Amino acid sequence: MDFKNLAQQYKNELLENVVPFWENHSKDEEFGGYFTCLNRDGMVFDTDKFIWLQGREVWMFSTLFNKVEQKQQWLDMALHGAKFLQKYGHDGDLNWYFSLTREGKPLVQPYNIFSDCFATMAFGQLYKATGNEEYGQIAKNTFENILKRSDNPKGKYNKLVPGTRPLKGFSLPMILCNLSLEIEHLLPEQLVDETIEKVLHEVMDVFYQPDSGLILENVKPDGSFSDSFEGRLINPGHAIEAMWFIMDLSVRLQKPELAQKAVEIVLRTLEYGWDKEFDGIFYFLDIKGNPPQQLEWDQKLWWVHIESLISLIKGYALTGNKECLTWFEKVHDYTWSHFADPEHGEWFGYLNRRGEVLLPLKGGKWKGCFHVPRGLYQVWKTLETLK
Amino acid sequence: MDFKNLAQQYKNELLENVVPFWENHSKDEEFGGYFTCLNRDGMVFDTDKFIWLQGREVWMFSTLFNKVEQKQQWLDMALHGAKFLQKYGHDGDLNWYFSLTREGKPLVQPYNIFSDCFATMAFGQLYKATGNEEYGQIAKNTFENILKRSDNPKGKYNKLVPGTRPLKGFSLPMILCNLSLEIEHLLPEQLVDETIEKVLHEVMDVFYQPDSGLILENVKPDGSFSDSFEGRLINPGHAIEAMWFIMDLSVRLQKPELAQKAVEIVLRTLEYGWDKEFDGIFYFLDIKGNPPQQLEWDQKLWWVHIESLISLIKGYALTGNKECLTWFEKVHDYTWSHFADPEHGEWFGYLNRRGEVLLPLKGGKWKGCFHVPRGLYQVWKTLETLK
Repeated sequence: MDFKNLAQQYKNELLENVVPFWENHSKDEEFGGYFTCLNRDGMVFDTDKFIWLQGREVWMFSTLFNKVEQKQQWLDMALHGAKFLQKYGHDGDLNWYFSLTREGKPLVQPYNIFSDCFATMAFGQLYKATGNEEYGQIAKNTFENILKRSDNPKGKYNKLVPGTRPLKGFSLPMILCNLSLEIEHLLPEQLVDETIEKVLHEVMDVFYQPDSGLILENVKPDGSFSDSFEGRLINPGHAIEAMWFIMDLSVRLQKPELAQKAVEIVLRTLEYGWDKEFDGIFYFLDIKGNPPQQLEWDQKLWWVHIESLISLIKGYALTGNKECLTWFEKVHDYTWSHFADPEHGEWFGYLNRRGEVLLPLKGGKWKGCFHVPRGLYQVWKTLETLK
Repeated sequence: MDFKNLAQQYKNELLENVVPFWENHSKDEEFGGYFTCLNRDGMVFDTDKFIWLQGREVWMFSTLFNKVEQKQQWLDMALHGAKFLQKYGHDGDLNWYFSLTREGKPLVQPYNIFSDCFATMAFGQLYKATGNEEYGQIAKNTFENILKRSDNPKGKYNKLVPGTRPLKGFSLPMILCNLSLEIEHLLPEQLVDETIEKVLHEVMDVFYQPDSGLILENVKPDGSFSDSFEGRLINPGHAIEAMWFIMDLSVRLQKPELAQKAVEIVLRTLEYGWDKEFDGIFYFLDIKGNPPQQLEWDQKLWWVHIESLISLIKGYALTGNKECLTWFEKVHDYTWSHFADPEHGEWFGYLNRRGEVLLPLKGGKWKGCFHVPRGLYQVWKTLETLK
């Protein structure tokens, strides 16, 4: 494999196609913040502002500034979103709404803890870029809020009757694996160490199931299997994404055996989640083979494939496992031939099972300036280390 | 068209295939209530009990007893579910949960007012079958609860920030069109008349848009258009289903012009919602042609097609409009060749855009003993009146 050329391909796509797409189309010059609902050619089709995506775009431009090049236009782009987020994104106590109108009026209450996670990432990275203590404080305080809320993330918006079937979800420990490294520079060492130890244990010992070799999305509080729609749910992309967070932790903790284990899980999950008939990775599966409740279960989503590319190339870089390269080639070919859009830039997000475009959008309520550029950056940088 | 033979086809499918399927597979002899998560061959794959579907099955068997034949086994089947519902289905104040465990422990809180609607239908119809005042009282009191909650159906579980973008939904007035006739025998005449007048106005003057000829799922409180994901949403099956409720009201109110209007809306919605490439009716569309937020937008669902058959044949019976017959034939052919399962009985529920089976289930969290048998009954009985 020609790592050098490949690295160039990912770098070019990032810097000459994807980043300019968001610079050109997402900035709301009138009310601040970003548009994310963008048609194939970048035209805005809806003006609501979703906090996940506002935070993620601030994070992305801050990251580009911090890690690729200290371009003023990138920092300005990040500050543009941060200003809007800071003013309108939360309820005054750093509980982050789910969505706002174009003008910044709150639409959906702060029921979703991932809004807080992406706000933390955004302000943590922007603090690195600017040294502005105010941003650091927002990130730090929001992170503390997340830890406080982590036992019942939805709070009063939780519709489950307490006690009947308590389950804990994979998403939060998974994202904390990433977040704890993202804002390590803002936290006391002990809190970082404790958090990492806790979430590592959750991901690798509780949600990971040695018998099947798979990660479950929801388990009982004691870690055992719940034979319910939620308990049977497998989200291959989610599990695979988590594994490169684990690989990053393996480097940080100098524990190569963690990366080995993560690679095993990535390969097993890909084998399980790959669509043998039409190619691509399924969105949802039921571990017992029952019909999942998600009607979109067989669709092929951009982030699932991009996150897989990151995990595979990092897995190869850390372990030298050749199977990672074989799978990387396969997923690379599928991804570039199905998601990329050479005509209008950025990538499609939603394909049907056959790999045909299901929604001709480049951004929406859940797809923004995040997985594609982050993935291109991560793969580019990892490929550059390979010979 | 050979109405007599067709009527026989619908009747046979109902009485010799679909009703026996639920009698054979859905009864939980151990804990009461019904299983609804059934595989292609009727095997139970999940044991949770969803109140929508528990209520709908009680209603269906009560209706068969009341309208087709006074078979003791049908009444017993209805009573079997009613007993479970009465004991476990609500919080003590007739606020009906969304779901229960197999044993009857509440899983999901009473956030969903349609649980209450289907409980009302169930106990109203069962009261007709048995004359048991207790059942009548449950239906009546639950109905009053629904009216009280109708301005904010989700109550404290509503995640929308009050005031920012108030919208009202089509579902509740639509279902009240049907419910007010379903339990007319239990209500004071004045309440029935007032309710009918109000919901008729909502459906035909507020949600119906004369410019496009379509019904919107959500509008602003003053009836105007909201240019948002919710405001742009079209659910063709929902609109078409509502039109046979309106046709029933046109008969009850002796207003043939209402049936004329309903037929117009059905034909317009079918023309708009029909998939010209792969046939079948789309699940969701955006009235401005934007990508809908529902990833399942292009799927073909059983209830959409069955409800269309009811509206078309009733439309023909009431107005003689030949276009109804042309469309009936087209939807009939699609439905019977794609949803029916001659091998294992009952019908598939979820097809992809191409009409291939997406989930090989006969029942699940949302599909139970309801749309297929109700539709077969309605079409059969309407066909019998035609010459």
